[in-house]
Amino acid sequence: MAALQHKIILSEDEMPTRWYNVLHDLPTPPPPPLHPGTLAPIGPDDLAPLFPLALIEQEVTTEQYVEIPGEVLDVYRLWRPSPLFRAHRLEKALGTPARIYYKYEGVSPAGSHKPNTAVPQAFYNAAAGVRRLTTETGAGQWGTALAFACSQFGLECEVWQVRASYDQKPYRRLMIETFGGTVHPSPSDLTAAGRAILAEHPDSTGSLGIAISEAVEVAASDPDTKYALGSVLNHVLLHQTIIGEEALLQLAQIGETPDLLVGCTGGGSNFGGLMFPFLREKWAGRMSPSVLAVEPSACPSLTRGRYAYDFGDTAGMTPLMKMHTLGHDFIPDPIHAGGLRYHGMSPLISHLYETGEIGAVAKPQSECFAAGVLFARTEGIVPAPEPTHALAAAIEEARRCAETGEEKVILTALCGHGHLDLPAYGAYLAGAVSDSETTDAELDALVAESLARVPSVG
Amino acid sequence: MAALQHKIILSEDEMPTRWYNVLHDLPTPPPPPLHPGTLAPIGPDDLAPLFPLALIEQEVTTEQYVEIPGEVLDVYRLWRPSPLFRAHRLEKALGTPARIYYKYEGVSPAGSHKPNTAVPQAFYNAAAGVRRLTTETGAGQWGTALAFACSQFGLECEVWQVRASYDQKPYRRLMIETFGGTVHPSPSDLTAAGRAILAEHPDSTGSLGIAISEAVEVAASDPDTKYALGSVLNHVLLHQTIIGEEALLQLAQIGETPDLLVGCTGGGSNFGGLMFPFLREKWAGRMSPSVLAVEPSACPSLTRGRYAYDFGDTAGMTPLMKMHTLGHDFIPDPIHAGGLRYHGMSPLISHLYETGEIGAVAKPQSECFAAGVLFARTEGIVPAPEPTHALAAAIEEARRCAETGEEKVILTALCGHGHLDLPAYGAYLAGAVSDSETTDAELDALVAESLARVPSVG
Repeated sequence: MAALQHKIILSEDEMPTRWYNVLHDLPTPPPPPLHPGTLAPIGPDDLAPLFPLALIEQEVTTEQYVEIPGEVLDVYRLWRPSPLFRAHRLEKALGTPARIYYKYEGVSPAGSHKPNTAVPQAFYNAAAGVRRLTTETGAGQWGTALAFACSQFGLECEVWQVRASYDQKPYRRLMIETFGGTVHPSPSDLTAAGRAILAEHPDSTGSLGIAISEAVEVAASDPDTKYALGSVLNHVLLHQTIIGEEALLQLAQIGETPDLLVGCTGGGSNFGGLMFPFLREKWAGRMSPSVLAVEPSACPSLTRGRYAYDFGDTAGMTPLMKMHTLGHDFIPDPIHAGGLRYHGMSPLISHLYETGEIGAVAKPQSECFAAGVLFARTEGIVPAPEPTHALAAAIEEARRCAETGEEKVILTALCGHGHLDLPAYGAYLAGAVSDSETTDAELDALVAESLARVPSVG
Repeated sequence: MAALQHKIILSEDEMPTRWYNVLHDLPTPPPPPLHPGTLAPIGPDDLAPLFPLALIEQEVTTEQYVEIPGEVLDVYRLWRPSPLFRAHRLEKALGTPARIYYKYEGVSPAGSHKPNTAVPQAFYNAAAGVRRLTTETGAGQWGTALAFACSQFGLECEVWQVRASYDQKPYRRLMIETFGGTVHPSPSDLTAAGRAILAEHPDSTGSLGIAISEAVEVAASDPDTKYALGSVLNHVLLHQTIIGEEALLQLAQIGETPDLLVGCTGGGSNFGGLMFPFLREKWAGRMSPSVLAVEPSACPSLTRGRYAYDFGDTAGMTPLMKMHTLGHDFIPDPIHAGGLRYHGMSPLISHLYETGEIGAVAKPQSECFAAGVLFARTEGIVPAPEPTHALAAAIEEARRCAETGEEKVILTALCGHGHLDLPAYGAYLAGAVSDSETTDAELDALVAESLARVPSVG
């Protein structure tokens, strides 16, 4: 019997040298971000206190491609191109005729897709003379990625980590520190935003929205300091498209065309990174895959949120963005997939969902952990809790194929390993992982209440 | 400027299909293992209660190569061939003209080189009808590897983890359980060996030697159960040679010949795996590298131990092996590199050291952690504490080259990542890592005392 090929590898020479900008090809443009005071579309000047000009330009450009700077490519080469794997052993365990592929971003320094944007963000900030970057982190992946990226370009890195995660995931803090970053639990008493929360809720376990408020406040008050965001914004998703560009080359190498693309969604950067280049191919008529977003039942911004203008942070310091949102002060259940606990969804992903280009489902975490354990025991990689959501949906579809006999080609985004999330697996194996018990009606009420606190947009 | 190539990759088709047996090419044969009662060389029958016949044959064969079974190659393909990296960014930080390469085994399911032998051991046991494997684990790498391998071949896996490691490294236990294995802290009350230790030392934090005694006792008392060892023995080092065979192909691909090979040594399997194929090339006159073993100052079996017959375990249940040893009941300081805390050294490595084929140095852990942090911040990989010993020696040599201007080609074994060892980095960054204060005279006395408890061999 011929050996089954598991890895589809690109050489460094074959690594894409430009990012793909989905804005260029969108059938209709997404609504613009608005200034929360004037409710007028924001301009570059509004973003200048937080971001360097190069990133502001990338946020609004409609050019189809953006060249990746050589210095960024040099750092990417530490782990990119990332491998595409065929999941032969998972397929066999499922008895499915489907062919399952996974694009694995866990080989990066942070163990996830996050360095794909952390590296260019650090590069452009360093090139603009910035001395320090601030950011928030939930699961800790983004903080780790930015600390690593800052170490490559000689920047200081200060991270506000959601308190719940800071306490539950000490290894993440230690990894950030090993890369040279500084970590504060959020809410902290270092910022007005943090102190305000602590005054009202001294035991607050924090949220991504609060941590964003703190990091933004510090950056806005120091001319040598800028802010970096790990998801949601256009330029972040732009940088992540190297994932999808590589996957296209890898599938072409073996002559495969995907029928189903599935990825998890928190803020949307891993999902957009894989999907946007495939959507371009779909719009060009070269393939016709279904594209599915999988979110946690405990934080279902696409499937249960409203498509409305809302703040990106809890304190209401960011521009208003049109997105699927559960409300900027929504605090999701403390599920283990911390990277999916964000109240909103990237405006680009929200727009694609609203226009019917992509579908979405929500999954309870117990089903996701079961998928993660099966995956670990067959493919040998313990996935981060976030991508187990995509795996759960991929496995569900592969099992359906086992019944129908369909030889579907499924591509899923395995956006990170779960080495620092093993206590979550321990809880699952001990039967101590529970699913959200919030009813749809309760959730709808919470969303309505939160959105009532947003300035009304005509 | 042309892009600097970082990764040297082999395709799955280029993966070696046989292991190299250094026994075939040794200038003189190593002394045989002895039965502890009769002091006569042991035969296959003595090992039959613990190992399946195929592995016993591999332990004693003098054939130059052993074919790797197709079923093992299929599992190897989940992560092999492993990458070889050029450390451009580390070189730049050191300002050295040396060219530093590292062969990275952290891409495996367990995060180290250990699955290279766990997979064939599980395969041969399953093929022989064995139902369950027992083993010990110190740092936890080997237990993780065997649990993964057992999941691939439908075997149960029961692991005795050194109590100190069980308490300090809960993530390792959780990873073993995620792969489907069962973990007991050692000493345990499940075995006579464990109960004897606990009776005398109720608070014992254990040792590899004690854990081996427990795992061996359980295997020896159940006909459906065998034992698996993660280092030291000939067949284990045989399986690891795929590392060196790949590295030879990878260096040939870019036209490099190594001047210095450096690896860390605990039991010797990572070291032998990389070095044996290069020694073959050296003996054949095709290259002339220096080969250096780096061990921890706190457990210096090669540089401070005696070359003598000793037990492999603390309770004295194993055959006597001629090796560099600190004494079978030596309990090393609880340094963070748990995988290097073994009293003895593989008989093959000991023999090569005794015959002058390889050199050895001992390094204090503080110097090793400094090397690990520098490596993380330049190359983007947080190394396990064990290979930071090799990195410290490689960096020392590269700094020497910076002074002399020598363009040495250095190849080091990066045998695992440190994702589950981050608390050790945290301790180092907090200034809470101390080095051994045992004097040479104290160490010599401990060794002499322990070896006096070994049956005298003519």
